[in-house]
Amino acid sequence: MSSIDLRGIFPPITTPFIDGKVAYDKLAFNIEKWSKTGLRGFVVLGSNGEYVYLSPAEKRKTVETVAQNTPDGMVVIAGTGCESTDETIALTNDCASLGAHAALVITPHYYGGEMSETTLINHFTVVADNSAIPILLYSVPKFTHITVAAKVVAELSQHPNIIGIKESSGNVNLLGQYLNNMSDDFNVMIGTAGVLFGGLSIGCAGGVLALANLAPQKCVQIFDYVKQGRFDEAKTLQLKMIPVNNAVTATYGVPGLKAAMDMRGYFGGEPRLPLLPASDQIKSEIKAILQQAELLKEDANIINKEPINVRP
Amino acid sequence: MSSIDLRGIFPPITTPFIDGKVAYDKLAFNIEKWSKTGLRGFVVLGSNGEYVYLSPAEKRKTVETVAQNTPDGMVVIAGTGCESTDETIALTNDCASLGAHAALVITPHYYGGEMSETTLINHFTVVADNSAIPILLYSVPKFTHITVAAKVVAELSQHPNIIGIKESSGNVNLLGQYLNNMSDDFNVMIGTAGVLFGGLSIGCAGGVLALANLAPQKCVQIFDYVKQGRFDEAKTLQLKMIPVNNAVTATYGVPGLKAAMDMRGYFGGEPRLPLLPASDQIKSEIKAILQQAELLKEDANIINKEPINVRP
Amino acid sequence: MSSIDLRGIFPPITTPFIDGKVAYDKLAFNIEKWSKTGLRGFVVLGSNGEYVYLSPAEKRKTVETVAQNTPDGMVVIAGTGCESTDETIALTNDCASLGAHAALVITPHYYGGEMSETTLINHFTVVADNSAIPILLYSVPKFTHITVAAKVVAELSQHPNIIGIKESSGNVNLLGQYLNNMSDDFNVMIGTAGVLFGGLSIGCAGGVLALANLAPQKCVQIFDYVKQGRFDEAKTLQLKMIPVNNAVTATYGVPGLKAAMDMRGYFGGEPRLPLLPASDQIKSEIKAILQQAELLKEDANIINKEPINVRP
Amino acid sequence: MSSIDLRGIFPPITTPFIDGKVAYDKLAFNIEKWSKTGLRGFVVLGSNGEYVYLSPAEKRKTVETVAQNTPDGMVVIAGTGCESTDETIALTNDCASLGAHAALVITPHYYGGEMSETTLINHFTVVADNSAIPILLYSVPKFTHITVAAKVVAELSQHPNIIGIKESSGNVNLLGQYLNNMSDDFNVMIGTAGVLFGGLSIGCAGGVLALANLAPQKCVQIFDYVKQGRFDEAKTLQLKMIPVNNAVTATYGVPGLKAAMDMRGYFGGEPRLPLLPASDQIKSEIKAILQQAELLKEDANIINKEPINVRP
Repeated sequence: MSSIDLRGIFPPITTPFIDGKVAYDKLAFNIEKWSKTGLRGFVVLGSNGEYVYLSPAEKRKTVETVAQNTPDGMVVIAGTGCESTDETIALTNDCASLGAHAALVITPHYYGGEMSETTLINHFTVVADNSAIPILLYSVPKFTHITVAAKVVAELSQHPNIIGIKESSGNVNLLGQYLNNMSDDFNVMIGTAGVLFGGLSIGCAGGVLALANLAPQKCVQIFDYVKQGRFDEAKTLQLKMIPVNNAVTATYGVPGLKAAMDMRGYFGGEPRLPLLPASDQIKSEIKAILQQAELLKEDANIINKEPINVRP
Repeated sequence: MSSIDLRGIFPPITTPFIDGKVAYDKLAFNIEKWSKTGLRGFVVLGSNGEYVYLSPAEKRKTVETVAQNTPDGMVVIAGTGCESTDETIALTNDCASLGAHAALVITPHYYGGEMSETTLINHFTVVADNSAIPILLYSVPKFTHITVAAKVVAELSQHPNIIGIKESSGNVNLLGQYLNNMSDDFNVMIGTAGVLFGGLSIGCAGGVLALANLAPQKCVQIFDYVKQGRFDEAKTLQLKMIPVNNAVTATYGVPGLKAAMDMRGYFGGEPRLPLLPASDQIKSEIKAILQQAELLKEDANIINKEPINVRP
Repeated sequence: MSSIDLRGIFPPITTPFIDGKVAYDKLAFNIEKWSKTGLRGFVVLGSNGEYVYLSPAEKRKTVETVAQNTPDGMVVIAGTGCESTDETIALTNDCASLGAHAALVITPHYYGGEMSETTLINHFTVVADNSAIPILLYSVPKFTHITVAAKVVAELSQHPNIIGIKESSGNVNLLGQYLNNMSDDFNVMIGTAGVLFGGLSIGCAGGVLALANLAPQKCVQIFDYVKQGRFDEAKTLQLKMIPVNNAVTATYGVPGLKAAMDMRGYFGGEPRLPLLPASDQIKSEIKAILQQAELLKEDANIINKEPINVRP
Repeated sequence: MSSIDLRGIFPPITTPFIDGKVAYDKLAFNIEKWSKTGLRGFVVLGSNGEYVYLSPAEKRKTVETVAQNTPDGMVVIAGTGCESTDETIALTNDCASLGAHAALVITPHYYGGEMSETTLINHFTVVADNSAIPILLYSVPKFTHITVAAKVVAELSQHPNIIGIKESSGNVNLLGQYLNNMSDDFNVMIGTAGVLFGGLSIGCAGGVLALANLAPQKCVQIFDYVKQGRFDEAKTLQLKMIPVNNAVTATYGVPGLKAAMDMRGYFGGEPRLPLLPASDQIKSEIKAILQQAELLKEDANIINKEPINVRP
């Protein structure tokens, strides 16, 4: 294991907007709430954080806000990957100085045809060589259309400043290949709650899960069940969470995730344009899915206690 | 559970050829050998059986040979899916009279753009309505480029003559969706050994695994470990089998699978044209992978005892 | 140019069914009607002929019917490609003896990952070596998910018994690569009417066009315009045909094509299961598209003169 | 036609780097050289301009440099598309004030699953409503994995501030659909030289062609031949340019394009990381392709006259 203990659950947190501007106070509100749920830490500026819609200045202030509001002992991982190698390094080191403990670096992907194994290995190596904090690789084929081959992960896992990978396709066979070929102190992080149990059972260190934005305790509970060998309970809870996870990822995307957070007492709010907010129809579908999974009833008092955010 | 108990491991058996003709005696030889390994039964005429290269007459005789050589208590499932609905029904009923207990029916796929949910549901319903034996759906997107949606499986699982699905993409999240929405007596069968543990742990009934052609005991062992709650041992063996499974499926295909079978004392032999046999280079790569997984050493006496098949 | 002159337009003819059986008389009816429209010949058992739904015996009788009803001077090309190399050869030679002048051989595709350049070149070479009639390669990525690289075509074009390729993706750049690298007597046939003018203008020999099933004169007219250097007229007619072509191919598939043929006085009829016939809604959309392209008005007398086929 | 006349050829110009910094003097050098070749204007900050690797400040200075060095009468189009709608508007208006005549706005694409027709129409409408200069849509599925449907283009073509689309897939059938459904003053620009003749012959206004970076006269010549009705000469030159175009786009990407520019007397130089420069092996392959197309011999004096750029 690396010096940073990644065993546990991280939400790739959403970025709250009010009137199109980052609502840093709402971000702090969410962080405080999430901090009481057993999460291992936070991933800020991930895909669910709409990082592609933030300006360089907003990125930095967002990371700073998260770092300042995160309790000691929890880990802050900043998504710092840019298309350009140099821009990635600069952002990573800025985030380091703002309080991030590690950086999540996405595969560059615009020129997909050029992203050979050699090019990817070179990019991540140069970034890791020049970064003040440890690096996690970030593979998310749904958005990048690039899958990171096991041999690339095997080679990069040898780098002392590369401590893990977040793999978001949910391909458990590929997770197994990573686990088979990595260095001992490397961490394979499951990137989708749909295969959390499946991934943990074969040795993944933890999960970076969109679902943990709205149901952190459930994700932590699956993690704990597996650690305790309570597999039947893990299985039952895993199956129960699958429809919720699909709703807030593949089916309804970030707008749906934010709508579900609102229903669960967090500040979700609207996405930035060009993303359109979830329609009333979609919201009622999400509500039904949450109720079916007993995610609206159990926390109902929380919803009542917190003032619902109002937008014009 | 359906009247046919599918809990366990099935190899989708290869079809042996000598000089381009089906070698029914070698098929019988393999069946006898596999029958002593704890397998639940056989899938004949699956993708690894090169069913697309067999004439209608060869298909029937192959199923008959398997049925006649399979010990009582083991289950014979015949791959009977054709592009045409009527041809599928005819082949299914012929295989039923030749001794098959159930039929595996692939999604029609040539006109992929036309295979809407309505069309698929109609096809499988008409086939099941008219089949003398129970039907399993067969989804293998790698070859068909068609993924069967959870709602299609949910609806078809209600049909009294449709008892399960073999899902070969290895998408554990999708397996979970199937499990969440199916009727009680429906069976979700894992279609690739790379996620055997992951699939079983969330409730799949068993596996139809190319790997079981050459390493049946290992697959059965993972199944038994999970049943017994010995998850650490399941995990270790699962990870050990992943490279072997990848070699005989994604990497080297049916020619590689057959070469690996030869190394393991089964009759593998050459595929039919247009498939080309594994080159010497590929064979030596496969050999190294088998040795790394301790699959050549442990059964070495078996290899020595059986006469190695000789081809001109 | 090869001994068979392929310069001109061929419809990949549909196979008529009545009550699920091949209606050979309706086939003969269509052939006679098409024969008066300036077409160069016919492609029978292509994708629009639902060849994957025909039994071996039906395939042979269908080819025989076409050959017997085709006037002298027109060319009959039979789709004889099967997944198996040997089965392809057998069907090709049977079709040759039944009167086909050439064979259209699709890329094998079930085991897509195995269809390397070497495998494809070997398959087509073995087929061509053993065929009594000349071979055309058939590349249709929409259905096969396989694209034939220019270097494969370049090499195969050297074979004395391979006289051309039908390329159905409509990728004009790829057509250009084929034209740049082929032997002198090789024919590049455009496989979709949407790029007929574009393909002819850079040197393709002709077209095998679904649209020619229902609008043969229009396709022939575009061909003639280009030959005569009347590019403005070619352009105008090409643009007018694009919506019709899209309707009877990508949008509504074979069921839509057959419905459009019925509207135009040919026998279209219903497809075979699992394909479902065009709904009334789709038929009225197709009708509107035909009217917009002036394809219902101009031939109205033809529709009135021919008795409309009646199905229960 | 819109107020800006787009009929002609535009290179999507590369961005020169020396020691990783934008070499604005080399950019000016290229612009001056290109300006004498009959080009209609320039597209700056397109995909071949590595716009994803430029900082906001570099983008602005690059556009300014191009605008200042472009002769009167030529058109400067700036690539201003960002993932965020608001950022796109801000960059567009800054580029307008720096001298750009129009803006090329790429489809947002990171959240591909969310880019519905509604979302795309809304994005482009908001951008066009708020832009000081006219907008061209930019569709490049190779990089974005998003294809813009004909009905989206039809609707957006009605917007008074949206004057065209650059379509880079080379799908001539799709170009035809755009042409069939657009408003009268809308311009369909061909985005790849491989189908320049095919696209122009059905009515496209012009081309934005990577090939025009290194062979502007050839591209202009094809345009002129078509305008003059000299189709045989257009065809011959089109076929001759296809291998060159494939080399500097699909096969070798931006690094190959820059290497080819160096060989042709322009300043190409190296790409930015993570892109790796073309290897010596690739350079010699490109050289052979240029010689085969007579692109090295014909302009040899130009190469000799201009001092070759030297890099350490």
